Amino acid sequence: MQIFGDSNSGNCLKVKYTCDHLGLPYRWEEVDVASGATRAPSFLEQNPQGQVPFVVLDDGRPLAQSNAIIWHLAEQSPLVPDDGYARARVLELLFWEQYSHEPYIAVCRYNLVYQGKRPEDREPWRVQRGERALDLLDAMLDDREWLVGGTMTVADVSLVAYTRLAPEGGFDLGSRPHVRAWIGRVEAALGLRPVEARA
Amino acid sequence: MQIFGDSNSGNCLKVKYTCDHLGLPYRWEEVDVASGATRAPSFLEQNPQGQVPFVVLDDGRPLAQSNAIIWHLAEQSPLVPDDGYARARVLELLFWEQYSHEPYIAVCRYNLVYQGKRPEDREPWRVQRGERALDLLDAMLDDREWLVGGTMTVADVSLVAYTRLAPEGGFDLGSRPHVRAWIGRVEAALGLRPVEARA
Repeated sequence: MQIFGDSNSGNCLKVKYTCDHLGLPYRWEEVDVASGATRAPSFLEQNPQGQVPFVVLDDGRPLAQSNAIIWHLAEQSPLVPDDGYARARVLELLFWEQYSHEPYIAVCRYNLVYQGKRPEDREPWRVQRGERALDLLDAMLDDREWLVGGTMTVADVSLVAYTRLAPEGGFDLGSRPHVRAWIGRVEAALGLRPVEARA
Repeated sequence: MQIFGDSNSGNCLKVKYTCDHLGLPYRWEEVDVASGATRAPSFLEQNPQGQVPFVVLDDGRPLAQSNAIIWHLAEQSPLVPDDGYARARVLELLFWEQYSHEPYIAVCRYNLVYQGKRPEDREPWRVQRGERALDLLDAMLDDREWLVGGTMTVADVSLVAYTRLAPEGGFDLGSRPHVRAWIGRVEAALGLRPVEARA
């Protein structure tokens, strides 16, 4: 499998985390979004949505959308539950992540890290919704170790991708102890070096 | 099953369309988003995400997020393919709908229909992305009757919900013949009265 991805993108890293955890072989093709690589005609021809991550499976068939990709790669693994309702809850969280979490946390991080904006220059409505998403996540994790059921699922993998990077977007995790503990658990399960410990 | 939904919301109507098509019994509980009903403490206690649609299954368990709900309700029906790759493609389109289509088409429609704004007062970046989503959809449907495989799936049900209402958001479908023909097919399969024929 080829993974076309930007190493700075949480959405792309979800796919890498899933493959590494499941031992799925892949070739990573770095695509620098900031330089406009996803707008190049040769890229759009292969992937008209013009977004990364984008994968080409071993049989040559393409697949886009981070959460669809990790669900597909993990569908026969313990990262996707067997029980129908548990599966639906995992999907609920994957859709919530893309609709009510990523557009706020990830965009604010992009503003600060890649556009050099100051925290006070972030769009207030995005900040407010990002704060709300983190509060909701903290409440969800109040009485549980993993988001759905008793083991890690793709919901944890997906949501941890940008949540662990939320401080880079100006969001405080210190006041969300359940989120912090959960990030530690998911990072340990995935073998990730904690963000705080980076150079 | 109870469906908590706003009859003016394409996201909520997706659930109704799916249930009606599959003959699943439900009780519709109207929730008027514009009046703030989804911010009421009694609603948030049951559904902390504070969004509709929201369903309570017959066994009392809750489920949120329109595309997760319709996937779950349809998972054992022909609306969700058996083949693993086809399933992944359906999910890809469901995530694309929530990330790259609904936030533009639905919000512009909300601006015009419920906030009384003029087309020229819509946010330009949302208009541009909505136009791009409709162009992409038209290209996807250039050589096929349904979005994935040879029959209608939840991808068609999900994407038709706001696409058929796109003119109410100031988007022109006249220049997208494949989209128009597909809307007619999906409406016929779902037994919906065409939007144009409404009073």
